[in-house]
Amino acid sequence: MTTALQPQRTIAELKELRTLTGDENGAQRVAFTPVWVKTRAWLAQKLAGLPVETHTDEAGNFWATLRGESDRELLIGGHMDSVPNGGWLDGCLNVMAGVEILRRLNTQYGGRPPVTVRLVDWADEEGARFGKSLFGSSACAGSLNMAEARGLKDRDGIALPDALRAVGVDFERVKESGKELKKAAAYLELHIEQGPVLLDLGLPLGAVLGTFGVERHAITFHGQAAHSGSTPMNRRKDALLAAAKMSLEIYRIAERSGNGVCTIGSCTTKPGIVTSVVEDCRITLDQRHLDPATLARMYAEAKEASERFAREGGVSVSWERLWHIAPRPFHPELIALCEAAIKETAGVSHRLPSGPLHDAAEVAGAGVPTIMMFVQSLHGISHNKIEDTREEHLVQCVQAFDRLADAAIAWIAKMN
Amino acid sequence: MTTALQPQRTIAELKELRTLTGDENGAQRVAFTPVWVKTRAWLAQKLAGLPVETHTDEAGNFWATLRGESDRELLIGGHMDSVPNGGWLDGCLNVMAGVEILRRLNTQYGGRPPVTVRLVDWADEEGARFGKSLFGSSACAGSLNMAEARGLKDRDGIALPDALRAVGVDFERVKESGKELKKAAAYLELHIEQGPVLLDLGLPLGAVLGTFGVERHAITFHGQAAHSGSTPMNRRKDALLAAAKMSLEIYRIAERSGNGVCTIGSCTTKPGIVTSVVEDCRITLDQRHLDPATLARMYAEAKEASERFAREGGVSVSWERLWHIAPRPFHPELIALCEAAIKETAGVSHRLPSGPLHDAAEVAGAGVPTIMMFVQSLHGISHNKIEDTREEHLVQCVQAFDRLADAAIAWIAKMN
Repeated sequence: MTTALQPQRTIAELKELRTLTGDENGAQRVAFTPVWVKTRAWLAQKLAGLPVETHTDEAGNFWATLRGESDRELLIGGHMDSVPNGGWLDGCLNVMAGVEILRRLNTQYGGRPPVTVRLVDWADEEGARFGKSLFGSSACAGSLNMAEARGLKDRDGIALPDALRAVGVDFERVKESGKELKKAAAYLELHIEQGPVLLDLGLPLGAVLGTFGVERHAITFHGQAAHSGSTPMNRRKDALLAAAKMSLEIYRIAERSGNGVCTIGSCTTKPGIVTSVVEDCRITLDQRHLDPATLARMYAEAKEASERFAREGGVSVSWERLWHIAPRPFHPELIALCEAAIKETAGVSHRLPSGPLHDAAEVAGAGVPTIMMFVQSLHGISHNKIEDTREEHLVQCVQAFDRLADAAIAWIAKMN
Repeated sequence: MTTALQPQRTIAELKELRTLTGDENGAQRVAFTPVWVKTRAWLAQKLAGLPVETHTDEAGNFWATLRGESDRELLIGGHMDSVPNGGWLDGCLNVMAGVEILRRLNTQYGGRPPVTVRLVDWADEEGARFGKSLFGSSACAGSLNMAEARGLKDRDGIALPDALRAVGVDFERVKESGKELKKAAAYLELHIEQGPVLLDLGLPLGAVLGTFGVERHAITFHGQAAHSGSTPMNRRKDALLAAAKMSLEIYRIAERSGNGVCTIGSCTTKPGIVTSVVEDCRITLDQRHLDPATLARMYAEAKEASERFAREGGVSVSWERLWHIAPRPFHPELIALCEAAIKETAGVSHRLPSGPLHDAAEVAGAGVPTIMMFVQSLHGISHNKIEDTREEHLVQCVQAFDRLADAAIAWIAKMN
């Protein structure tokens, strides 16, 4: 059934793309830049031999549509953009695997599969330039905060609407792209894991349960500056000490949560000089879990702990929410189909949540039945030129993802 | 014997100085600035009625000498310079109490006390502009690192030698001021405590045992940046976690040391973003104790702890010494004389070390028998416009310091 599939061609094309759009520091396909525009042209050329309709929607997302017997649609998504100095697989593996699946379907069904199949290259998944990830998919899903996005600027002071205009996108109309999802019956996304779970288990592939919800806060402890020489230890109101206790506490909170994660990613101190007790200490806390109630409890536990540490140290504490997204559980039937496709390909599968966000979270949030498949990452590392996956695993992921596409087509065709 | 002493005059003069050289944010007598030059002129005018010889030495220190029967010298020191937005007592209390003592000695001895008495206003004790404190006293004591000082620049890029030239000081000759200490038999310095010890004890005055030695280091933990969503807690190499453990540990190290202090004054994180585990965390550690062996043990304990925390967290650690000064114990006989003078004035005394450094540390380091007297600080705070001391305590400190001067004169006169 999948005899026409050529996973080695996908790998060869990814290597071709790496040469075309990378340098000695890694991939340079930052969204809305000339390299990204060149990448899109390269992608269009790869699709040129197929009977697909292509267009770019109002949000800058690129679509290739292979019309089927039914107008119910199977969507396969990814993103060609990368962070600066990025890896060779993050995002583009998904798209190029999708191209290969379109080729196979076209061959098998003589250009007309049972349902319509569409490949989408989402615009600016990474948010590397404007600090707002999932731009194109959130615009399409309708969740994009327009007021906030309108005010975003890159480090050169260029506003997002101006950068979009330069690539032919009218910012004020981006949500009109929402019509693209009107007939979507299922959404599939393949991705490198970007973490070490499959690596540690020695497994090539996993079925993703959903994307973690995220609670992201800045926590500021406020104590009193005091001379480092003349202030006895028991007289200090040391903001850093309270923050330091949080750094230990989040490991206990994460442990109690099961498989949630907590990260303090930054710490800043004021006055921040060697001869003074720290008066103000600001830390950022990022908490993630797949279960909404557990995530809420993790947040509550962190808040309670911060207040306890503040009391102990005679300092005060304030919290500021930076960002929040609800967990996005994927579709149970698609999870089962994904697992079956993986087992058929690799013998064994593993279910795992996704810590990082993906465009799939936005599509799921818009009500489209969604599933992701993960392939093992070497080193558990991405967003880095050393990002890599074993070649045999790349072959397996294209095969399994193709099997999943077939199963999803059958699943959609059965609907009514 | 001290009937001519008028401590209220000292207080009135300090208030006059505050009006002349302060603003709504506090004292503005930063060394080598026009306000500081004006302060010096005001001081010279206060001394004009006395039969003293005045001059400024090669390091910019101002001296007023009342010749005595013996050419062995009692030195009384302080500093008129302040930090920006400083308090009304730090440094100038010492000098103005010294002026009052000169007046009393002049009256009592008809211009010729038993030994020569000299008042010195050290140049740039605070180091507020160039980040190098104890400039004038370290030049005079011979400990100034010329190569290091030559390279110092203020925030406008003006080099210390150029700033000195503008007030008539030739940087390359500053150590010639060392001759001023040739005949010094004792050095006395009065100072506000700048800490809460006397306040907590409810005592006006204390005899200072010496200035703390200081070990000052930057400690950098090096872990691995990793995605905050995809990296399980047990796979993290979190540099902040190891640094956080240090923040708690230094309180245990200080407690074991008796009355030493440890301070982590700053913490910086890289990459320092909300979505990444901290790869590099740099903290500064300032450790102080009066006993050299204890200080060495505190340093060793901190180093050992940092290595233990690094091992526990799978990170590495490196240390960089920022600064070091040995403890400067004061002269045992002068400590006893100081204590007696305080008891005679206030009934009860207390012995305490000085956490902050003072010019006295440099003079003691040059081998001159040295003692400091502390007067209680309200709020335990200095380097701030709210710095203050009760008026009755100011009166008592001038009285006790005057008694100490008398006792020191007798002590010097007895020598041979």
